[in-house]
Amino acid sequence: MRGHADAILAGIGLDRGAPGPLYRQLTAQLRGLIDSGRLPAGTRLPASRALAEGLGISRTTALQAIDQLAAEGYLDGRPGSGTFVAALTPAPAAGGSAVAGQAVAPPAEPSGAGQPFHPGVPDAAAFPARAWARHLQAAWRAPATGLLTMQHAAGQPELRAAIASHLRSFRGLDCGPANVLVTGGIRDALALVGQALLPAGAPVAVEDPGFPPLRTALQAQGRPVLPCPVDGDGLRVADLATRAAGTCALTVTPSRHYPLGATMPLPRRIALLDWAGATGAWILEDDYDSEFRYAGQPVPPLAALDRAGRVLYLGSFSKVMFPSLRLGYLVADGDTVARLATARPRHSDPPSAVPQPALAAFIDSGGFARHLRRMRRLYQARQAAFLSAFHAALSPWLVAAPAPAGMHLVAHRGPALPARMTDLQLSALAASFGLSVPPLSACYAALPAGAGARARPFGLVFGYAGVAEPVAARFLQRLAAAIAGDCAAPGSL
Amino acid sequence: MRGHADAILAGIGLDRGAPGPLYRQLTAQLRGLIDSGRLPAGTRLPASRALAEGLGISRTTALQAIDQLAAEGYLDGRPGSGTFVAALTPAPAAGGSAVAGQAVAPPAEPSGAGQPFHPGVPDAAAFPARAWARHLQAAWRAPATGLLTMQHAAGQPELRAAIASHLRSFRGLDCGPANVLVTGGIRDALALVGQALLPAGAPVAVEDPGFPPLRTALQAQGRPVLPCPVDGDGLRVADLATRAAGTCALTVTPSRHYPLGATMPLPRRIALLDWAGATGAWILEDDYDSEFRYAGQPVPPLAALDRAGRVLYLGSFSKVMFPSLRLGYLVADGDTVARLATARPRHSDPPSAVPQPALAAFIDSGGFARHLRRMRRLYQARQAAFLSAFHAALSPWLVAAPAPAGMHLVAHRGPALPARMTDLQLSALAASFGLSVPPLSACYAALPAGAGARARPFGLVFGYAGVAEPVAARFLQRLAAAIAGDCAAPGSL
Repeated sequence: MRGHADAILAGIGLDRGAPGPLYRQLTAQLRGLIDSGRLPAGTRLPASRALAEGLGISRTTALQAIDQLAAEGYLDGRPGSGTFVAALTPAPAAGGSAVAGQAVAPPAEPSGAGQPFHPGVPDAAAFPARAWARHLQAAWRAPATGLLTMQHAAGQPELRAAIASHLRSFRGLDCGPANVLVTGGIRDALALVGQALLPAGAPVAVEDPGFPPLRTALQAQGRPVLPCPVDGDGLRVADLATRAAGTCALTVTPSRHYPLGATMPLPRRIALLDWAGATGAWILEDDYDSEFRYAGQPVPPLAALDRAGRVLYLGSFSKVMFPSLRLGYLVADGDTVARLATARPRHSDPPSAVPQPALAAFIDSGGFARHLRRMRRLYQARQAAFLSAFHAALSPWLVAAPAPAGMHLVAHRGPALPARMTDLQLSALAASFGLSVPPLSACYAALPAGAGARARPFGLVFGYAGVAEPVAARFLQRLAAAIAGDCAAPGSL
Repeated sequence: MRGHADAILAGIGLDRGAPGPLYRQLTAQLRGLIDSGRLPAGTRLPASRALAEGLGISRTTALQAIDQLAAEGYLDGRPGSGTFVAALTPAPAAGGSAVAGQAVAPPAEPSGAGQPFHPGVPDAAAFPARAWARHLQAAWRAPATGLLTMQHAAGQPELRAAIASHLRSFRGLDCGPANVLVTGGIRDALALVGQALLPAGAPVAVEDPGFPPLRTALQAQGRPVLPCPVDGDGLRVADLATRAAGTCALTVTPSRHYPLGATMPLPRRIALLDWAGATGAWILEDDYDSEFRYAGQPVPPLAALDRAGRVLYLGSFSKVMFPSLRLGYLVADGDTVARLATARPRHSDPPSAVPQPALAAFIDSGGFARHLRRMRRLYQARQAAFLSAFHAALSPWLVAAPAPAGMHLVAHRGPALPARMTDLQLSALAASFGLSVPPLSACYAALPAGAGARARPFGLVFGYAGVAEPVAARFLQRLAAAIAGDCAAPGSL
């Protein structure tokens, strides 16, 4: 016991000259010791008096920190036996998602993909790893020479065929293998299109709000991006004439707008295709979240309606298989695919062949479609459980409504949240204990001019799909406690 | 029999108005029917008289075509029973390399990597596929959540560690995991360096001659390339002051120059590092073919001598594992690696995680080092056999000398080759029956000014490593017959 207390005291260094109340420093440092594993679950904390003496602080300060951490779920009080570090992270053997085990992102992992609620992360525990490993072994134990030596700039032929077949059944796309180019993901597709099809430096229109990495990737190509507004029916096509004049391409998420979730109605889709036909611009259709629809009628993708050959249909296996797979696809007319495949070797290496025949076999065997059905049921149930836990924990401060599709929800401002609090601040508060809930305002390329805190967009994007229900509930309670603590503290946030 | 003859006649259409002798058209079309598999091995050809009648040509023309194809190895005459399509391609069950089975490159495969003698292609039949498949299955049957969900911009931590350990032992590099960034290959590395470290549009110096895809990739970034001459000791460092003034980076192959094979001596390496230190330019060291040295002392890489942190050391697993793996590495100081890893998500998708833990386990188990040793012995023996077959078949027209390292040889002009013949023409002749032997002159960014055929560089790059000895001998004989036929034909080439 004494050893633990020493470790705790040795791990804390308080700076009395720093601004803000001292208990906040102590809270943050204890939280860090727990998050980093240096204070494992079950560790008994010194009594508040001992803590205060050891650190040279008042007992009130020690008690404030302990109370705050208990409210956040970091500490458990056991009557008659003291205060202990709570077992928040379920042991891997206990089943369920192990996502909390990654709360501390490793170096060179800037995306937050390992942190709970990071949008777009599927439930890794539900992935059929044994079947996947079997397909990998079967594909590579006696490979044809060509599998080892050929570098197919458009992807392995069997995977192109499997993707085409899947998209014909699931999305009604009239496509064959020659229409499919295998990509390393959405950024790889954007880079290839930018290099091979679009004039250097020509602007590209994007949805506003939209998916920030997409905007960043286009800007990294040295292109101006033209933000185009969005309403309850998705991208405002009528505004393109003014907002997207002179653009060579447009990125759009008509199935389910990211992050707000609108589905673009059919008349607007037709108008969008007409616009592309008239201007000659390419439409980069990101068929985001089309795999997981829980209610309502699916609307056909733009690519299925396109008669003028202006649509490049983009999809990814990151969310429906797993993010580190890094495989996706671009579907277009055969000439465009051939043009992109011919250009690729000048610019970039094609994706590794290693996962490609295994993914093709997984699709062809029916295992992929079964996995999609299982995940659809799982995520639908998980959304309901998430919303119930969310309301229970956070309803005075944040509100969220059910969504008919996808893997994330956007939480909006609730009545009790002080008007001065921005979504950036709340996102940073959540990040301080390891959650990745990106602020909606960061999805905007152009914030309303002269926007004060009130006019500024407010929202937090919660990816609920990858976090098992009990873990999600604990994290939501912890977030609620942190918000309550900050609302109550003078001069906080 | 009659059915075959019909198929042959139906597959041929001669244009009497086209320039050149008619038998050349017939030869090319029959060759095409055989290459495409429409005339399979063992098919009996109609007698020359029947062929002539069916096509409305002279019997002499039919005989000339049959003789030429027999000399090229496409046809076998069996005394007393007629002429048959030869079984050039070994059946896969017969063992050995199946590389000839890929003589016809599929669409969207512009690189020629599937064709015999394409440089840089290893022997796929000797790859330990069962061990590789076992490592894949072991890595993926029960993956940690992080393996599925984390996208490591610098590569999977275990692979970075395995690569660092391998390079410490094999190349004397003083490096750890933090110095290694996993890439998707050399173009991926170049793209990342170009985006994250080099000023946009700034020139990069390259060896002249050099590896053409490297030059193309830099030009595709919108950069001027500055060709710098090479002599028997590799890149002429003394010329950099004039040739590479104002460059922000230089690509160089000091271990073994591509394609000419020079190894840069130590004093010149020191001078090159001094130049980089004085100018602040990055040195992109492509440690080409360092794994396969058959004679002579290995010289330490520039990266092992670098004190100023100007060297980015590039390597690839394409030739030592298999080309479609698409994994390589960049080694640099930790700050530079962190800078590249931070920049990557803005520009491109990282390589798939799928092969990474399997490759790490293959390296850590010692299997990779064993594979390298086996391949070194195999390729050394194969080079000797190749040279012997090459001399026997081609010595009047082409000459080639042994090389102390690597997987390719450069053939030069022999005494009997007409002076008017360029390496471009010979390379095209070889390509007409499915061989990929790139011309040396295409490796030059800048050909000597006003160069006639005599002053023009001449060479053919033969990648011998991936072609089993008997297959290589047959192809070399076929090439010799084609050269002889073209030398003899009036107005040929």
